[in-house]
Amino acid sequence: MTQSFRLGVAGLGTVGASVVRMIARRSEALRSMTGREIRVTAVSSRDKARDRGLDLAGVTWFDDPVALAGAGEVDCVIELIGGAEGPAKATVEAALAAGKHVVTANKALLAKHGAALAQAAEARGVALAYEASVAGGIPVIKALREGLAGNTVSRVYGILNGTCNYILTRMEREGLTFEACLKDAQALGYAEADPTFDVEGYDTAHKLAILTSLAFGVEIDAEGVSVEGISAIQPLDLKMAEELGYRIKLLGVAQAAAGGIEQRVHPTMVPLSSSIAQVMGVTNAVTIDADAVGELTLIGPGAGGEATASAVVADVADVAAGVLRTTFGRPSAHLAPPQRIAMQRHEGGYYIRLTVHDRPGVAAGVATRMAERDISIESILQRRDERAASKDPHGRSGQPVPLVLITYAATEGTIRDALEAIAGDGLLAEAPQLIRIERE
Amino acid sequence: MTQSFRLGVAGLGTVGASVVRMIARRSEALRSMTGREIRVTAVSSRDKARDRGLDLAGVTWFDDPVALAGAGEVDCVIELIGGAEGPAKATVEAALAAGKHVVTANKALLAKHGAALAQAAEARGVALAYEASVAGGIPVIKALREGLAGNTVSRVYGILNGTCNYILTRMEREGLTFEACLKDAQALGYAEADPTFDVEGYDTAHKLAILTSLAFGVEIDAEGVSVEGISAIQPLDLKMAEELGYRIKLLGVAQAAAGGIEQRVHPTMVPLSSSIAQVMGVTNAVTIDADAVGELTLIGPGAGGEATASAVVADVADVAAGVLRTTFGRPSAHLAPPQRIAMQRHEGGYYIRLTVHDRPGVAAGVATRMAERDISIESILQRRDERAASKDPHGRSGQPVPLVLITYAATEGTIRDALEAIAGDGLLAEAPQLIRIERE
Repeated sequence: MTQSFRLGVAGLGTVGASVVRMIARRSEALRSMTGREIRVTAVSSRDKARDRGLDLAGVTWFDDPVALAGAGEVDCVIELIGGAEGPAKATVEAALAAGKHVVTANKALLAKHGAALAQAAEARGVALAYEASVAGGIPVIKALREGLAGNTVSRVYGILNGTCNYILTRMEREGLTFEACLKDAQALGYAEADPTFDVEGYDTAHKLAILTSLAFGVEIDAEGVSVEGISAIQPLDLKMAEELGYRIKLLGVAQAAAGGIEQRVHPTMVPLSSSIAQVMGVTNAVTIDADAVGELTLIGPGAGGEATASAVVADVADVAAGVLRTTFGRPSAHLAPPQRIAMQRHEGGYYIRLTVHDRPGVAAGVATRMAERDISIESILQRRDERAASKDPHGRSGQPVPLVLITYAATEGTIRDALEAIAGDGLLAEAPQLIRIERE
Repeated sequence: MTQSFRLGVAGLGTVGASVVRMIARRSEALRSMTGREIRVTAVSSRDKARDRGLDLAGVTWFDDPVALAGAGEVDCVIELIGGAEGPAKATVEAALAAGKHVVTANKALLAKHGAALAQAAEARGVALAYEASVAGGIPVIKALREGLAGNTVSRVYGILNGTCNYILTRMEREGLTFEACLKDAQALGYAEADPTFDVEGYDTAHKLAILTSLAFGVEIDAEGVSVEGISAIQPLDLKMAEELGYRIKLLGVAQAAAGGIEQRVHPTMVPLSSSIAQVMGVTNAVTIDADAVGELTLIGPGAGGEATASAVVADVADVAAGVLRTTFGRPSAHLAPPQRIAMQRHEGGYYIRLTVHDRPGVAAGVATRMAERDISIESILQRRDERAASKDPHGRSGQPVPLVLITYAATEGTIRDALEAIAGDGLLAEAPQLIRIERE
């Protein structure tokens, strides 16, 4: 009989505890699927005393995850410590150096050190698997790496951060401010005490960088992602979006363009009728545009102990069955070097919300500056405060008013140049709001 | 260097031609991903003379696909002939008997002979892969078989037939009849000259049976699927559905229930806000409910040469890389025998559209028959022809009128019993329309 496949779980938080339980619960099915018994033989965590409700009888406890990584009773290390440096990195490095397979949910580690770790895994002929690092329980790594082998991918984009999508969903549904929704998200445990990493887009950027490498066969380049979060989005933008037939989502987008690959994270207007626009709350979604399949969309849970554990256990089952994929879908030496495209060169439609002084000629002045740069306007929307305006014989309130423009495709550089000129003309009462439009 | 992986393509229709082109086009990427050169070394088709625009230099032509299956220059046979019997079956059997891997897009063959073929593949230690057989380019077989290994699935359902979804989409959007839309679908090549197989739900049933086996670890049981097509759906039903917050889709549903697994194909009311309700035209979608991930939805192209070839080539890449999965996710001997649940025992909500005589007491009579059987009504909608009714002092037209009921969960047996009683009371001017509701 084939030997059992022995797991060392480093990190026993919510996900770690779910993994231990799932491996036990699915024991028979996993044996049937992989041809081997899979069992947890070692665990490591900071606090041994804490009651996690786990049956750890017969399981070796390690205070030091690096010691677990080198232990003889472990074939595969499951790294759930988190963080790009420190014990997580040391544990994964030690495991790979010892010739152990590694399964991890650590997007920050992959994004920052993925290239070196992939080489280490290749050198030892072991797996470095990370389905859980992107979009939680959605098997998107598998879909990109294996399911679309026949395709050339042109774009991959998605809602990769549940915290942001939860906040945007509530802002839209209830007309609340970003700050109010963030507070609620924190109270519900959807957002950290320091929410910067999530709401400013860095978490999405790490996940996007992983998807980019797989989708385009290039070296991972998290530093090359242009990042913008959702903290500047105002209820008015969500309202305007809906009127114009869009919904605002924080998207990570990787797109092949002339000369390289754009990688960008930003609040985005997506058509109300698109699959991705229907994704509300903490749910994640990824859409892949590829030459043979056209458009493929995967929607599912982006976080949570059980959903993340589901992805971890899928990786474990693959490795136990002897399926060892190269980390980024092909040998490191075959990955193309990243070719960044500056955000200034991004071409697309834009939603521009200006806050202008309410006086004659302002709209004309704005339109002129756009026209001078060959920027075509698809629609223009001006909202006056009707009550205030009614007091004035010319229908003007004296208060600054929003002026919203939707442009046809233009480069970001040109748009920013036009906005500078408009600001220079003294037409703006506030800094402009700029949201990119992503079409299906 | 590793030997090249040699493909024999049996069937050079749209999909076969796409496969040949895709293997050539993705040659370098596939070599990088799998570590082997993959090339087409043999082909077979009925008509050698036809110009397919393919470069078949150096490729051996076989008039007989069974001869191709046994040929020395072939490691893997790609069966794209179609049909559950005849040359398709003979080719696959010959290939497996000769110890060749098989990749197929043939759902009918799998549905009918999958169990025997899986055993033959296991006996020879070769792969029998069929990603292309369900939902075209969506990698749903991979998701179920590998990506959800940690999950217990409770339900899998989907839009698995593009022809039906196209017809329903047009009926809904344009208020057209089934017959008119079918004619258009035939003219556009979305429906066959004899459309029975698609529109009466049999194609969906074959695909569902495959998903059921994978999702629940049971022997494939296509005969156990209860099947109902879309030909009886009327424009009025689509209109009523929308008013009630639903959309009508032809779904295949497999669901764990007490004592077994329900497998059913029927027109279904799905909530307008659900992901699956957004799926329009020839697109396919599959939703999987499972304990760890909750809900996972995959949306993509269900048919077409390139999309289907994409799934075929993904299977080829797996097999070339040495990844040999058991056909239904676990050894045949580990699959549980099917346990059918009769449709009469299905429990769910129902949309019932009655055509009743327009006279006093009819609604009360209907409601009484329901109440007698403990069927709770969620909503009731009666539409009179206002013009006709306005001529009568009591607001009655004398014409039969539609009476629509939405029920809370009840068993199909009870509902059918109530409808029989209502018919027996002489209240109905036409046979009732019954559409099941599927909640998220």
